[in-house]
Amino acid sequence: MAEHLSQSELDYPFKLLEFFNGFRISKVIFSACELGVFDLLLQSQKALSAEMVARELGTSVDGVERLLDVLVGIEILEVETVEGTVFYSSTDVANLYLAKSSAKSLHDMILYQSQTIYPLWNHLADAVREGKNQNQKTFGLSAEDIFQTIYRSDEEMLKFMGLMNSTWSLDGHDVVTAFNLSSFPTIVDLGGCSGALARELARAYPSASVTVLDLPKVIHMAREHFSEEGDTILFQEGDFFDGEIPEADLYILARILHDWKEERCEQLLRKIHACCHTGGGVLLVEALLLENRRGPVMAQIFSLNMLVQTEGKEHPPSQYSRMLTAAGFQSVQVCRTGKSYDAILAIK
Amino acid sequence: MAEHLSQSELDYPFKLLEFFNGFRISKVIFSACELGVFDLLLQSQKALSAEMVARELGTSVDGVERLLDVLVGIEILEVETVEGTVFYSSTDVANLYLAKSSAKSLHDMILYQSQTIYPLWNHLADAVREGKNQNQKTFGLSAEDIFQTIYRSDEEMLKFMGLMNSTWSLDGHDVVTAFNLSSFPTIVDLGGCSGALARELARAYPSASVTVLDLPKVIHMAREHFSEEGDTILFQEGDFFDGEIPEADLYILARILHDWKEERCEQLLRKIHACCHTGGGVLLVEALLLENRRGPVMAQIFSLNMLVQTEGKEHPPSQYSRMLTAAGFQSVQVCRTGKSYDAILAIK
Repeated sequence: MAEHLSQSELDYPFKLLEFFNGFRISKVIFSACELGVFDLLLQSQKALSAEMVARELGTSVDGVERLLDVLVGIEILEVETVEGTVFYSSTDVANLYLAKSSAKSLHDMILYQSQTIYPLWNHLADAVREGKNQNQKTFGLSAEDIFQTIYRSDEEMLKFMGLMNSTWSLDGHDVVTAFNLSSFPTIVDLGGCSGALARELARAYPSASVTVLDLPKVIHMAREHFSEEGDTILFQEGDFFDGEIPEADLYILARILHDWKEERCEQLLRKIHACCHTGGGVLLVEALLLENRRGPVMAQIFSLNMLVQTEGKEHPPSQYSRMLTAAGFQSVQVCRTGKSYDAILAIK
Repeated sequence: MAEHLSQSELDYPFKLLEFFNGFRISKVIFSACELGVFDLLLQSQKALSAEMVARELGTSVDGVERLLDVLVGIEILEVETVEGTVFYSSTDVANLYLAKSSAKSLHDMILYQSQTIYPLWNHLADAVREGKNQNQKTFGLSAEDIFQTIYRSDEEMLKFMGLMNSTWSLDGHDVVTAFNLSSFPTIVDLGGCSGALARELARAYPSASVTVLDLPKVIHMAREHFSEEGDTILFQEGDFFDGEIPEADLYILARILHDWKEERCEQLLRKIHACCHTGGGVLLVEALLLENRRGPVMAQIFSLNMLVQTEGKEHPPSQYSRMLTAAGFQSVQVCRTGKSYDAILAIK
C-alpha cells in the first residue's frame, strides 16, 4: 500500500485536495466555453481586459475576471499587465481544442459534459446504491429506454451528436488506423450517428464504400447538421436491433456495446455475424479496461458513466473476446491506442 | 504562450481531458465517502471483495465494483486477485484523510463539497453572467442573506461547521504558528464557528485565553457537537457586525473577510481596531492570491467559489494590507504557508 501515495501526501494531502477540486476546474473550463470566452479571444487576435471580455459576452466584470484568473492559473490562458491594466490572451491549446471554430474543437463534448453529465453525476452515490442509471432522478425521464432519454428533444439529440463528433475528431483517426482495414471493400458503421467516424474511415480507406446506419431521426439530423462538402459516406435509415442489417465486409460498432447489457450485445454480434461476408469482420471501438483492474482511469470512469447514464459498462479485452467468439467470430486482435478509445478486430 | 502547454498536448490533449474529467473524479471520492467505503475498509482490517463491500454498505455489487475500480485507478485503494477473486483494501492516505474516524479526517469537508458546493457550481456560468451567488437558483433560497442560507437548517449548519472543522484540522496548526503569537495574552476568534481553530491556538499558546465569538445558534451547536475533552477555549455568544466585540489583544478573522464586500470588511476592521488593546493586533487567515494573478489555483478557485456562494472574494496581500492600514492597523506582515490558507498579521 505504502508505495502508492507518498509520505509527503500523508504530511499534507495536496493530491487529494486537487481531486476534491476537480469538479470546480471542470466547471471553470465548461463555463468559459458556454460563455464564449475562447471564441472571443481567438477572434479578437489581441489580448483583452476583463472589462472588454465582460462587455462582449454580456457578463459581469467581476465574475468573468475571476473565471479568467483561474484559466490563467491552470495555464489555459495567458495574462500580462500593461501600464496597470491586466490583459488576457489565449493559448495554442485553447485555440485548437476549446474555441468552437477549430476543426479539432471539443466544444460540443464540453457542452454535453457540462449540461447533461455533470448533473447526472450529482447522483453517483444513488447510482452505486441502486445499480442503475439516474435519468429519472436527474431529468424526470424513464430509466428504461436510454436512447429515448438521450434523444428526448431535437436539442438534446444535437448535443449528443455533437459529443460524438468531438470524440471522433479527437480519436477517430487512431481507431480506424489501429488495423489495416484496406481489405474490406464495404463498411457499415452501425449506430454511426453524425458520421464523424465514417468520414475518418473514408479518408483512411478512400476505395472503400462506407455507410452509416442509424435511426431515421438520427440520419435526418446527421444530414441536416453534420454534412460536409465532398462527403463520400452514405447514410441508411435502420435499426440494428429491431430491423435488418445490410450485408457488408466490415461492421463498425463504436461505443455501441458499452451501452447495453451483455446478453443484448451477444444477440447483436450473432446477428452481425449472420450478415457478414465470409472473410469479413467486425471492428469494436471502445475504451478497454485493463485485465488487472488497475486502469486506465479514463476507461474506469467511462464504465461508471455507463452505470449513471445507460445499462452497459466498459470491459477488458477478454470479455469482448469471449462475446465475439461466442457469436462465431475468430482471430480476435486487440489494439490499445494509448488514447481514450481502443480497437478490437475479429474475423468471420 | 507556447511555453505553457507542450507540443504533446497539441498532439493529444491528455491534460485537458483530465480537467474535463475532474468532476467525475471528485464525485467518485465524494460518493465513496458518503457510502462509507473508507470506513468499512479501515474497520475490516482485511481486503474485501466487491460482494462483501456491497453487502455491508447495502449497495449494488456491480455499481460498487466500478466505484472501487476507479479508486484503484487513482491509487486511493489497492487491489489484488487471490484465486480468481478480486479483493480491495485501503491505503494509508485513505485511512488518514477519508475515513470518518481519523483525527485528520476530511469526511465533513467532502460531504459539504458534494452536497452543497457541487450543485451550486452547476450554475457557475450564470454566476459569472450575473455577478452574484446562485443560492436562489440552486436551493430556492435568498441570494441576499448568505449566512441565513448557509445556516438554513440544523443539518446544514452542522455540515458547514463540519467543513470548518475539517479545514482547520488540516491547516489550523500552520496558520496559527505562521507568526509567533505568544505575546498576545487574550485572543478572540471572531466567527470562530466550531472552535477548531481556537483549539489550535490554545494548543500552540497554552498560556493565552482563547475565546470563540459567534452567533448564539452557532455557539449552541459548537458546544453540543464539537466540544472536546479538556477544552480550555471559551465560547461567547455575539454578532461581530451588529453587536459588541469584546476587548482583546489579538483578534482572529479566519475566512471571514472573504465572505463580504470590501466596504463591510473595512467597517469591521475599524470596529475591531477600536476595541483592540494598543500593541494588540489582528490575524487574518485567508487563501492569498498572487499579485500577478497567476495563482495559486486553489485561491483562485476559492475566489470563484465566493462568487457562487457568498458576496465576497479572495484578495492578494496588497488588498488586505490596504484595508488594514485604512482601518488604522500598521506593521502588516504576510506569511504564505504554501498550503491552502495563509496568514496576515497587523498591529494597532
